[in-house]
Amino acid sequence: MLARIRARARSVGAVIAGIGDDAAVLRILPAHQALVTTDFSLEGIHFRREWHPPEVIGHRALARGLSDIAAMGGEPIAAFLSLALPPSLPQAWVDGFLKGLLKLAKTFKISLAGGDTSESPAGGVLIDIVVVGSVPRSKAILRSGARAHDRIYVTGTLGGSAAALSLFFSGRKLRARDFPQHFRPMPRIRVGQVLRQRAIPSAMIDLSDGLSTDLAHICSESGVGAEIEAEAIPTAKLGKPPTPVDRKFVLDGGEDYELLFTASPGRRVPRHIAGIPITSIGSIRPNRGIFLTTEGKRVKLAPQGWQHFDRD
Amino acid sequence: MLARIRARARSVGAVIAGIGDDAAVLRILPAHQALVTTDFSLEGIHFRREWHPPEVIGHRALARGLSDIAAMGGEPIAAFLSLALPPSLPQAWVDGFLKGLLKLAKTFKISLAGGDTSESPAGGVLIDIVVVGSVPRSKAILRSGARAHDRIYVTGTLGGSAAALSLFFSGRKLRARDFPQHFRPMPRIRVGQVLRQRAIPSAMIDLSDGLSTDLAHICSESGVGAEIEAEAIPTAKLGKPPTPVDRKFVLDGGEDYELLFTASPGRRVPRHIAGIPITSIGSIRPNRGIFLTTEGKRVKLAPQGWQHFDRD
Repeated sequence: MLARIRARARSVGAVIAGIGDDAAVLRILPAHQALVTTDFSLEGIHFRREWHPPEVIGHRALARGLSDIAAMGGEPIAAFLSLALPPSLPQAWVDGFLKGLLKLAKTFKISLAGGDTSESPAGGVLIDIVVVGSVPRSKAILRSGARAHDRIYVTGTLGGSAAALSLFFSGRKLRARDFPQHFRPMPRIRVGQVLRQRAIPSAMIDLSDGLSTDLAHICSESGVGAEIEAEAIPTAKLGKPPTPVDRKFVLDGGEDYELLFTASPGRRVPRHIAGIPITSIGSIRPNRGIFLTTEGKRVKLAPQGWQHFDRD
Repeated sequence: MLARIRARARSVGAVIAGIGDDAAVLRILPAHQALVTTDFSLEGIHFRREWHPPEVIGHRALARGLSDIAAMGGEPIAAFLSLALPPSLPQAWVDGFLKGLLKLAKTFKISLAGGDTSESPAGGVLIDIVVVGSVPRSKAILRSGARAHDRIYVTGTLGGSAAALSLFFSGRKLRARDFPQHFRPMPRIRVGQVLRQRAIPSAMIDLSDGLSTDLAHICSESGVGAEIEAEAIPTAKLGKPPTPVDRKFVLDGGEDYELLFTASPGRRVPRHIAGIPITSIGSIRPNRGIFLTTEGKRVKLAPQGWQHFDRD
């Protein structure tokens, strides 16, 4: 198994020693710090084999980790894959999974530099992805830097991934190419780096759990509150003709992997970076609590934590 | 859950930002490289809750990763814990698990700097541990450096962990304090560092899968063979009076977490480092194949890969 992965994963760039030793050896640039993030993708919790093709599961597993590096303004270096498989799983599934994962790795010029393999004890595919990145010393963008009166921005459009998921739950079969936000989310690595290089964000997070939850993380770590304008939030469109998704997906749907950041009110923020639209959706308030203004009414916005697949 | 872990895990030393952000930020010393290793500990594969107390499972999960850093001659910096739990698991179990893990982390002065938590999809506890370390630039000790005529050495005694496990399989109940090699293996961090500082090893690996398998890894990566002397291998003793464990555990038993290394024949190797005995057990041969000499007979030694708990 490890030999098959190794045959497909070539070490490039910063990876001095990868698969085949006790630990990988990584070069970190002078005057840089290392970034490390780990993310589970567990069958039945984060994906279903009957819904998601193996290439999509590989892509999404790695995208979760890359998106965390993007949210720090970092550059990804290497990925590590811990993979437990049911004995009955066809080799073609594993090949497809690795294909999807390695294709995304290639897009961002990172190596699969190690990991672990095991039999899965209870029959489901278990994936844990580690992504290591780097960032110039003390330039990582944390969640804790938001200040009162900062503006709040998001990249791209929100709700597309969760809306697709709800179609799965309603019994629809979906083709991956019609729902790219759900099946092949693109981590905003380039946008995060440009924002960091221009020292625009005071705080940043990726939208993996949903706007209401991830904004609450920023506010909690920064000791502030927020107010957002419902009509300002860029809403994903699905179907033909393209129709905006329900607001619940925009506010609470997870796995869009867009970036949410804050910037001081005097800071000029581009409308696009690397072709991705950037939209102002509200502002940070000195007092705790997150509020949503919609059609002139102001309501409290509770974090509706993204519960992945355990809704049913 | 993450909040409970965070409350217990304090960032020290090289961890600039830990739990609570999208990724941890780690300081890597100038002129050093980063080491990264990931290890699953899955219920039913690597441990059983009915056999192993939660503190022991936490200790062993982290020990696996630390031992990989030891085998590179590295210094551990931080650990990351991905933890999926059955909903019915008592909080006391989680507290015990974290206690065991964090006690070992404290021993080696490393932080628990992040990770991921999830519900376990099929009822078993799923653990993936990442350990990040560092090593002076190009000084990491790889598996690939063994050369013909190098001597082969091991630290400590072998077979104690697998022999204890076999008692579990035979229906015995074991007290953790009577079987420290199985319940609380101590990663040989200090020994690995001293060996690296003195530039003694040409190649090194930790004994996680068993001597026959891990020596085969060294030989395969180095393109060489080996010959070991059965009577020279330091054998663990168990019970009262202490009795040497069966040779099968010494040769094929995993999870001793001792170090196996090679050194050129002219190199002086101490008999002890940091109180741990170091024993010469054989030598590297130019041709492939691993042989065991016992009572004057020479037999081929096949790698009997450590299969963890899937023997029954």
